[in-house]
Amino acid sequence: MKYDVIVIGSGPGGYVAAIKAAQNGKKTAIVEKAELGGVCLNWGCIPTKALLKSAQVYTYARHAAAYGIEINGDIVAPLDKIVERSRGVADTMSRGVAFLMKKNAIDVLAGRGRLAGEGRVTVTAADGSEQTVEADHIILATGSRPREMPFMPIDGRRVISSREALTLRELPESMIVVGSGAIGCEFAHFYASLGVKVTVVEYLGQLFPVADADVSKALERSFRKMKIGVMTSTTVKGVTVVGDKCEVRVEGKKGEETLSADVVLSAVGVKSNLEDLGLEELGIAVERDKIQVDEYYRTNVRGIYAIGDITPGPALAHVASAEAICCVEKICGHEPARIDYTAIPSCVYTTPEVAMVGLTEKQAADQGYEVKIGQFPYTASGKATAAGDRDGFVKLIFDAKTDKLLGAHMMGANVTEMLAEPTLAKTLGITAEQILATVHAHPTMSEAVMEAAEAAMGHAVHL
Amino acid sequence: MKYDVIVIGSGPGGYVAAIKAAQNGKKTAIVEKAELGGVCLNWGCIPTKALLKSAQVYTYARHAAAYGIEINGDIVAPLDKIVERSRGVADTMSRGVAFLMKKNAIDVLAGRGRLAGEGRVTVTAADGSEQTVEADHIILATGSRPREMPFMPIDGRRVISSREALTLRELPESMIVVGSGAIGCEFAHFYASLGVKVTVVEYLGQLFPVADADVSKALERSFRKMKIGVMTSTTVKGVTVVGDKCEVRVEGKKGEETLSADVVLSAVGVKSNLEDLGLEELGIAVERDKIQVDEYYRTNVRGIYAIGDITPGPALAHVASAEAICCVEKICGHEPARIDYTAIPSCVYTTPEVAMVGLTEKQAADQGYEVKIGQFPYTASGKATAAGDRDGFVKLIFDAKTDKLLGAHMMGANVTEMLAEPTLAKTLGITAEQILATVHAHPTMSEAVMEAAEAAMGHAVHL
Repeated sequence: MKYDVIVIGSGPGGYVAAIKAAQNGKKTAIVEKAELGGVCLNWGCIPTKALLKSAQVYTYARHAAAYGIEINGDIVAPLDKIVERSRGVADTMSRGVAFLMKKNAIDVLAGRGRLAGEGRVTVTAADGSEQTVEADHIILATGSRPREMPFMPIDGRRVISSREALTLRELPESMIVVGSGAIGCEFAHFYASLGVKVTVVEYLGQLFPVADADVSKALERSFRKMKIGVMTSTTVKGVTVVGDKCEVRVEGKKGEETLSADVVLSAVGVKSNLEDLGLEELGIAVERDKIQVDEYYRTNVRGIYAIGDITPGPALAHVASAEAICCVEKICGHEPARIDYTAIPSCVYTTPEVAMVGLTEKQAADQGYEVKIGQFPYTASGKATAAGDRDGFVKLIFDAKTDKLLGAHMMGANVTEMLAEPTLAKTLGITAEQILATVHAHPTMSEAVMEAAEAAMGHAVHL
Repeated sequence: MKYDVIVIGSGPGGYVAAIKAAQNGKKTAIVEKAELGGVCLNWGCIPTKALLKSAQVYTYARHAAAYGIEINGDIVAPLDKIVERSRGVADTMSRGVAFLMKKNAIDVLAGRGRLAGEGRVTVTAADGSEQTVEADHIILATGSRPREMPFMPIDGRRVISSREALTLRELPESMIVVGSGAIGCEFAHFYASLGVKVTVVEYLGQLFPVADADVSKALERSFRKMKIGVMTSTTVKGVTVVGDKCEVRVEGKKGEETLSADVVLSAVGVKSNLEDLGLEELGIAVERDKIQVDEYYRTNVRGIYAIGDITPGPALAHVASAEAICCVEKICGHEPARIDYTAIPSCVYTTPEVAMVGLTEKQAADQGYEVKIGQFPYTASGKATAAGDRDGFVKLIFDAKTDKLLGAHMMGANVTEMLAEPTLAKTLGITAEQILATVHAHPTMSEAVMEAAEAAMGHAVHL
């Protein structure tokens, strides 16, 4: 069979690429060895948000009295039910992708895809049968998987990755989370919400290291309030399973010590899925675990493209989708806008949530910017107070020369939804005065964005 | 005593005006006859949001099983506790305004303010004592109160306004809400959430009449799902208290009938507080219940200004605050940007929420625009699905000639926080392509804004 476009991998990079290609009139196929929707829909973004929503409802129920609601009886959070709901949500979304493939007349080829020379892909099904299909354009979108460290081998029972953390059968009494990126933080929060004694171990000097230092500090305070242990600047030397327990040897500020827990969650980043793709045979350039591409996601081999986690840039679902659209539009002869990698938003769905876009204060200083910074706390927000969500703040960083937004760093309820405004502002080079000229609805938490801009300009009203 | 600026009324117009004046170095006083913060903080926006949050937590608890959480026992929503929390929130915010007055060295004059000639204000305290103070600039910000209709006299017990609805002692069995603006809808939702049999009667042809028709329809569906009765195109002819019941004679699509309920909530709009202000003596121009002002909120009498609900334009807290800033900046010799009244956001904090800015589809058609319209349903949103919040959608209206955003109309979880992005876009004349060039974080509900923009341009990915 000959296609215009074949996409290998059906995550948020791959399936979006396939849809865009089909919408542009291209005869399109997508190759997927597992569930449609990839890790994001099935084993990442979506099922974790479902778990976290259950944790939130559980927390609301436990703290109902703070809202004037009385619950006279036991409140139980059975992990199996919560996981079952999460799997149901993932299935719904995966079926949604199947529907979109059908609607857009995209052939779904079930199996493992491999480049078989220029313009050719071999698909090996689960039963071992093989077919080879051809296409003018082949887009690699195979994504990534949890990285495994030699000193912390994942056995899937005691030492687990995010995948197993999504479907644990029983709640452990204690858990050590190694790594405090978004995944580590979210699972730490989820399991701690359900009563697990959680300790987070982070190699770098702050929790959620990519965040602005003020956000990291605030998130750490919020974790400690929920009794989550936080050990930063701490190296894991080795993990050993001893009987029913994991022993984790760490070296931190206080020297070496051995921690013990029922389960260790390894959340130390991701590794690109580049194996057995046929890259070497075609001479496709790979550097430091990433396929090298140009601004339109073309590899060094004509007709072969790569998008998403397997290329440089942040390994985030929305980046993969944006790259998919840009890559396909270019293939189809349009002139898509290039992606502005300085304006990629990112979120952590703990409670309180974390959301950020653009430069941190330190990055702005390192890049030589003179800045104006404004912060606004949720304690001064009417909506946050009414909602009982006073733990949070918005911090905006502006270029002092132009008053353009350089970065937004937020922690608190709803900040993941509020992030779109500063992301639009960062992308379009919008200034503090333009944000202030925009009337923000009262009472909303997004007023804090306006107030932070006012604070940066030196005249906050509510501070 | 002689001031630079005196403000009469301490709502979100007045207290913001006072702070801005003080920040600009003006010797400032504010006159308030009741609680600092005015209706918004004490009897409006803020305490209602507190009630609605309690209702939301109650609803989460009642539907906890849908999230995998088990509650084995009674879940009770005692109105007194919920009201007590709401009053506490209002008090906290009112104390916050007192703190801001003190911090900005603004004199708070407790009493009723009245113009006593040019540059003079008489303040009559609760004990009847009077003082007269002088100022170069007097800003009237006396706000509004619930409008009372002759056929529906408010007795505060059986026939109530929003003020009494905030502090009912006992939950009625049934309630008729007359008027389906934001206030009517929010109280209908609140009381229905707590188990009251609620019927909403609306004179105009759709629920929440200022909304886009698609939003009204969706909100009506959502109300009906909660067993709220909705009667549109229905006129209230009269309300009579008979024993323990209110009889409400209405004339609607099916002719005349008499409805009966324990309580009637009159939510038929607001009336400006213009009485006993000394307007007539000074010859200040008033038309149709509104003080006439120019673009900087100057009345026809030199040195006297008016902002907020007592002037033309939407009677919304954030409009009052924006007018306050513009008015004071001009007084202080700056050249503030004029407020763009075509980009005023507005919200209803029901569940699902409603949020909108700019032209409705009908308004755009009436104004002769050729439009491109895009809708995106929450059923196709991963975050909404994970959160169990699939009832919602985003509708964006663009000018077909320029692709600039004309209006955004949304219903669903978090839309009141998502609204800041389209409001910024509407204010700054941002196009669909610019919204699409902005990477939206996944998984968020705000992706629906991006998808709706894609749909409007004819190429939605997830539809």
